[in-house]
Amino acid sequence: MKEIIALREVRSFFVGGDLVRLSGLPIREIPTIPGAPLRCADPNGTYAVGQLYVQQYLQANPTASYPVHLWHGGGLTGACWETTPDGRPGWLDVFLRRGFDTYLTDAPERGRASWAPYPTINAEAPWHRTLEMAWWMFRFGPEGGYDPDPAKWRTYPDLKFPVEAAETFLKQFVARWGSRTSDAWAISAYAELLDQSDPGVVVAHSQGGLYALDLAARHPDRLLGLVLVEPVAPRDEQFNYAALNSTPILIVTGDNLTSRPALEAFCLRARAAGSAVKWLDLPQLGVTGNSHMLMMDTNNLAIAIQVLKWMEENISVIASR
Amino acid sequence: MKEIIALREVRSFFVGGDLVRLSGLPIREIPTIPGAPLRCADPNGTYAVGQLYVQQYLQANPTASYPVHLWHGGGLTGACWETTPDGRPGWLDVFLRRGFDTYLTDAPERGRASWAPYPTINAEAPWHRTLEMAWWMFRFGPEGGYDPDPAKWRTYPDLKFPVEAAETFLKQFVARWGSRTSDAWAISAYAELLDQSDPGVVVAHSQGGLYALDLAARHPDRLLGLVLVEPVAPRDEQFNYAALNSTPILIVTGDNLTSRPALEAFCLRARAAGSAVKWLDLPQLGVTGNSHMLMMDTNNLAIAIQVLKWMEENISVIASR
Repeated sequence: MKEIIALREVRSFFVGGDLVRLSGLPIREIPTIPGAPLRCADPNGTYAVGQLYVQQYLQANPTASYPVHLWHGGGLTGACWETTPDGRPGWLDVFLRRGFDTYLTDAPERGRASWAPYPTINAEAPWHRTLEMAWWMFRFGPEGGYDPDPAKWRTYPDLKFPVEAAETFLKQFVARWGSRTSDAWAISAYAELLDQSDPGVVVAHSQGGLYALDLAARHPDRLLGLVLVEPVAPRDEQFNYAALNSTPILIVTGDNLTSRPALEAFCLRARAAGSAVKWLDLPQLGVTGNSHMLMMDTNNLAIAIQVLKWMEENISVIASR
Repeated sequence: MKEIIALREVRSFFVGGDLVRLSGLPIREIPTIPGAPLRCADPNGTYAVGQLYVQQYLQANPTASYPVHLWHGGGLTGACWETTPDGRPGWLDVFLRRGFDTYLTDAPERGRASWAPYPTINAEAPWHRTLEMAWWMFRFGPEGGYDPDPAKWRTYPDLKFPVEAAETFLKQFVARWGSRTSDAWAISAYAELLDQSDPGVVVAHSQGGLYALDLAARHPDRLLGLVLVEPVAPRDEQFNYAALNSTPILIVTGDNLTSRPALEAFCLRARAAGSAVKWLDLPQLGVTGNSHMLMMDTNNLAIAIQVLKWMEENISVIASR
């Protein structure tokens, strides 16, 4: 691991999205400067919707021969790959210190990618996840395990999520829209990003895994491999498993996995179609207590090292270029 | 300017905000995975609102003796300081290559800082700016100057905003809420950020300038200086001008400035109270055509160099530490 992250450039850009024009809406007046008159705000006009926000870290002396993309899951942003909620380095730090050119994204409708006005453009209302729901969905503990009084928190045995920082973690939750709205925008924008970058490895979490698999099935030439962290498995009967043949896939999952049946079904089908999916099932390796947010767990760096080892063995030679 | 940006660490964190708990709301069902049953989404529970998102770039070998904070304006995020809409380096790049530890923020309710559910927590509806409104508010050209057909675009003479990328710039617009909602959260969170960092210089754009002046008046010991790019001037009669005495202030403005009377009134009052406000009025120096987004304009690096010169002369010695 490099002690210094030496970068040629830190940059950002937007890809994908559409221009949408609204008309016939009433004008609003909004307060923007205390003490000044209300501002006349005309909502009629042109909006950009569905775009992807991309931060790009370009190494001064890359020691990896391909880039890595970090894709977050539902209700979160690229911030989930940066520092952990309790202040330790996240996986962005790992990939930067290992010399990878790294792309960190906010998917459409989240974070710096912005979100489309509703109900005027996006008919559906957004959904904000509560900490109560995250507690069991992200498997910190059982349903009802969060309480405003930390003394009453109930967590799973050996929990490796830094649960003392759970309320800090909540600060990075963002609104999400349902799959009918967001998925097409996200997949289209991610396809555009992959088209304009060198083929690389996508490291995708949760909902991001669903997008990554969709793209691997449709644009396998744009991807050298997939690392799917606690992914959502495709449920679509039309999913083209055979197209995954050429893409090495690593799945990494934590403890108390509720989506195990869906992931097992996915692996069966993918392997039957000829794909060499490798599943790093942490509890089966004796590593207990990892949550859905395993890139933030206390052993996040040890897991990252396992991922890097798989990449070294399965992607292509990581060498100076 | 350094050819390589050598960093000790790239990290991010959240500061400020409150926990808010909702109850008594009906449960919704939302589609999250195509082909899977709808997800039961319970909106009752705990939310984090009003927090600030902070990216921190720590130099391996800082050549500046204090950090720089980059604060965006209304309806935008920290992305506005990164790459320009036409792909050139922004001011983040300048400060990183000059060796400053740099903080890049998304203010509460914008970008990765997330936004509070409305109308359940935030009673007011958000406002999304159209490109039609931005066109004259950001002074690319006169009101009505934007048209879906680029051949019909009307811009100001010598316009230095890279207007061919105006629709790309639109992709970074995010929703904003009125001042009654957002300002208290933003000022409180920024105060917390300044409290926990070394005293530095805040470079603030537009609405960010209003926040920066408020903090300079209330916590002058936390700031070494202010660079106000096209700032909003305080309108509050109670504003404590005398407290600005100890803080060097540079104002930078572009061409066709509609807020000139408010800024002139601010300077008069601040100077009468003993503050040495310096106003870099670009058209008066013969530099015409700069827009409200002058950190993205084609001469953005030349302006940044003027700002750095003022910092060298007015803040404290920039030397190796």
